Amino acid sequence: MSKLDEALAELKYDERGLIPAIVVDTESKQVLMMAWMNAEALKMTLQTGRTHFWSRSRQKFWMKGESSGHVQEVRGVYLDCDADTLLIEVVQHGAACHEGYRSCFFRRLGEDGTWETVAEKVFDPEDVYGRGGEGHTPPKR
Amino acid sequence: MSKLDEALAELKYDERGLIPAIVVDTESKQVLMMAWMNAEALKMTLQTGRTHFWSRSRQKFWMKGESSGHVQEVRGVYLDCDADTLLIEVVQHGAACHEGYRSCFFRRLGEDGTWETVAEKVFDPEDVYGRGGEGHTPPKR
Repeated sequence: MSKLDEALAELKYDERGLIPAIVVDTESKQVLMMAWMNAEALKMTLQTGRTHFWSRSRQKFWMKGESSGHVQEVRGVYLDCDADTLLIEVVQHGAACHEGYRSCFFRRLGEDGTWETVAEKVFDPEDVYGRGGEGHTPPKR
Repeated sequence: MSKLDEALAELKYDERGLIPAIVVDTESKQVLMMAWMNAEALKMTLQTGRTHFWSRSRQKFWMKGESSGHVQEVRGVYLDCDADTLLIEVVQHGAACHEGYRSCFFRRLGEDGTWETVAEKVFDPEDVYGRGGEGHTPPKR
């Protein structure tokens, strides 16, 4: 078993074989998104240097940016104390959110008790993903 | 139904009734930890202004800092595009990690394929939690 295999064997996947991966911008440290990896998606991520995830709704692998071009170049992989959550530092091309925002966390709970959009869109989803044509549906997690 | 109840009704909990909550430092934006909330833990968090979670292993609520004093004062609550992940901005007293590090993500996958500790401890866990005496076990997630 290689050192890397040993390191990866420490990870604690949940009962579905998944581990949450928090993706942050390597420069601003902003949290961009959270998605799920299985062991294979993590291997693909490490081998290619681009983030790959497992889609629970579609039951398939997806590479971030596969349809939008908004790929994430991996700069660092961190593990938490319980070994059950990953944090991935990336250079984000374009934006992380399929709704056009830099980060998926663009809504903040306001003092009036409603979700307020607190970010500006950096792209128009229709320009990037088309108007719902087949093969252009944004990757769902 | 109040506006806040309506806002919270948008959240998508998983099949266990849980939603992941990423906790970040409100100033540095550093990711401190990830833990799970159910609807009740989120309400307790909003009502008290201090983070509360649901422990999957212990099947009970816990307030961050209940044994260590290292509480988290909530400064902002964000929701992602899919409404299935929360991000909580906090002022962290002491440190987030029960192993003594500021952040739970203190291990980085090195070029040699091993997990390298890349942070310094800010407290000694034995000083804070004791030597395993009852009631002093660090909160597990």
